[in-house]
Amino acid sequence: MYREQIKVLDCTIRDGGLINNHYFTDEFVREIYKALSASGLDYMEMGYRNSRELFPPADYGAWKYCDDDKIREVTDGIDSDIKLSIMVDAHRVKEQQFAPVDESPIDMIRVATYVKDMDKAIALVRRCHDLGYETTVNVMAISKEIDPDLVEALDQLAKCPVDVVYVVDSFGALYCEQVEYLVKLYRYHLSDNKEVGIHCHNNQQLAYANTIEGIIHDANYVDGSLFGIGRGPGNCCLELLIGFLKNPKFKLSPILKVIEEQLLPMRNEIEWGYILPYMVTGILNEHPRSAIKMRQTDQKDKYAEFYEEMRDVAG
Amino acid sequence: MYREQIKVLDCTIRDGGLINNHYFTDEFVREIYKALSASGLDYMEMGYRNSRELFPPADYGAWKYCDDDKIREVTDGIDSDIKLSIMVDAHRVKEQQFAPVDESPIDMIRVATYVKDMDKAIALVRRCHDLGYETTVNVMAISKEIDPDLVEALDQLAKCPVDVVYVVDSFGALYCEQVEYLVKLYRYHLSDNKEVGIHCHNNQQLAYANTIEGIIHDANYVDGSLFGIGRGPGNCCLELLIGFLKNPKFKLSPILKVIEEQLLPMRNEIEWGYILPYMVTGILNEHPRSAIKMRQTDQKDKYAEFYEEMRDVAG
Repeated sequence: MYREQIKVLDCTIRDGGLINNHYFTDEFVREIYKALSASGLDYMEMGYRNSRELFPPADYGAWKYCDDDKIREVTDGIDSDIKLSIMVDAHRVKEQQFAPVDESPIDMIRVATYVKDMDKAIALVRRCHDLGYETTVNVMAISKEIDPDLVEALDQLAKCPVDVVYVVDSFGALYCEQVEYLVKLYRYHLSDNKEVGIHCHNNQQLAYANTIEGIIHDANYVDGSLFGIGRGPGNCCLELLIGFLKNPKFKLSPILKVIEEQLLPMRNEIEWGYILPYMVTGILNEHPRSAIKMRQTDQKDKYAEFYEEMRDVAG
Repeated sequence: MYREQIKVLDCTIRDGGLINNHYFTDEFVREIYKALSASGLDYMEMGYRNSRELFPPADYGAWKYCDDDKIREVTDGIDSDIKLSIMVDAHRVKEQQFAPVDESPIDMIRVATYVKDMDKAIALVRRCHDLGYETTVNVMAISKEIDPDLVEALDQLAKCPVDVVYVVDSFGALYCEQVEYLVKLYRYHLSDNKEVGIHCHNNQQLAYANTIEGIIHDANYVDGSLFGIGRGPGNCCLELLIGFLKNPKFKLSPILKVIEEQLLPMRNEIEWGYILPYMVTGILNEHPRSAIKMRQTDQKDKYAEFYEEMRDVAG
């Protein structure tokens, strides 16, 4: 698949950081930045810009806050054309500040929101847009939204200055036919000057397949992470996506190299990937929190019991 | 997805046996048989019926040969409606014998073949059909066949007494649009009284997604294995497939239970799953043999080097 408009964003640090409270070493982040730059990727997401009041620095690493100076420090001296993004939660904005774009190393601000917080998200988009940033709205948990609410949100987004609106399969619950439906719904309701993006979770080993499905139906912004790192089952594997896309600017070797050198040792320390309790929350269209909790107990491999319990909860 | 005609076959022992030369204990096979029976599965594949001349018994376990008596021994005393299948390689038939179906515990014989061996496969189908068995032909490595050869083979198959013809993505190379094309091609060329099946490998984490794609386009016979066990990246995960299919006869809990009790301990001993060298052979549409070989060396995690080497080979 080659379509010039397709932009690939790596969310290794941001989504991967949900497993380790964003405690990545500077060296690690620097190596990822180098590799993604060498592979010709379009965007690297450096983490969240979260409030230090809501998330106290005693408990989290630097990539929970993504201060401009910190980003400059790790990227300094590396030759790169990659654009940088950060994510902000619409429902957790407090004292965070944003410099005008030309005084910041950041190019794009991605606003994560639930449908119910759409007004907050749009207010934040306007603020960031006025400062000169590219903006996205990542609509989370849409597999639990009913159509009229989602459509109302899309119609609001169509009228605001956001550049890209993402289909986010937060629970890893969507099948390809549902992805097709949602991407087409987004395309229909958003004005022609906005792009559709897709961000998938891998609970059912469908993150990559659903990302392709999104691309087929004209989603032009696609997310992946190295070796699929991310909370629980993780995300669409960036290496698969780059293996699929035929855009000549992308190179697979730097990605494979940084996986063998940085991600493989990390996965021996932290768990992510195809793990059955997350598969269960995925097929039941539930938040992964119950799976995260049971994986910390000595019952962590009692898959059948967990499924029976969750069916009761879901019912 | 619910369609009464859909039949699910488990190939845990047969395809999984390619990792351990079919040395599964009787106890293991018995537990799998119990679990699949309790889950309402349609077919369980017990292994290969291979020639003892070509595969000497000193090197292989019982499930490389699947003698009728051996099958009776492990299934004895377990209440079950599941049908049993075995696989035979069309190009490796020597002294193997088949009893008439009413004297055998086996219901279905699946003939694996390359397009070039289609005449041998059809001869074997006729022999098995005349003995009363259900038959399938599993056309391997079709991602490397050119259309006229494949179409000729399908036209031959349309005229023979085979019941099901399988799309087999031997190299885990196919994308969903290619699966759609192939399943439709099969359906078009096979007569109306034959079914299309699909068997996928998981090199690119697409085995399950491609199996769904096959189902959407009317493949009614689908293969999975417990926890995806199989050579290299393995197969479509049976637990995902059963989570997806809405046929009320299927039950997920017995499958999850046997995975936690039998498959999880086994995966701590033997390697299968998402492993990057197999991803590389998948995206390059190559046989996994080079990946299998490099995984046995101390260079087993040199993904980038392997990719560069394989690109030269493939070119």
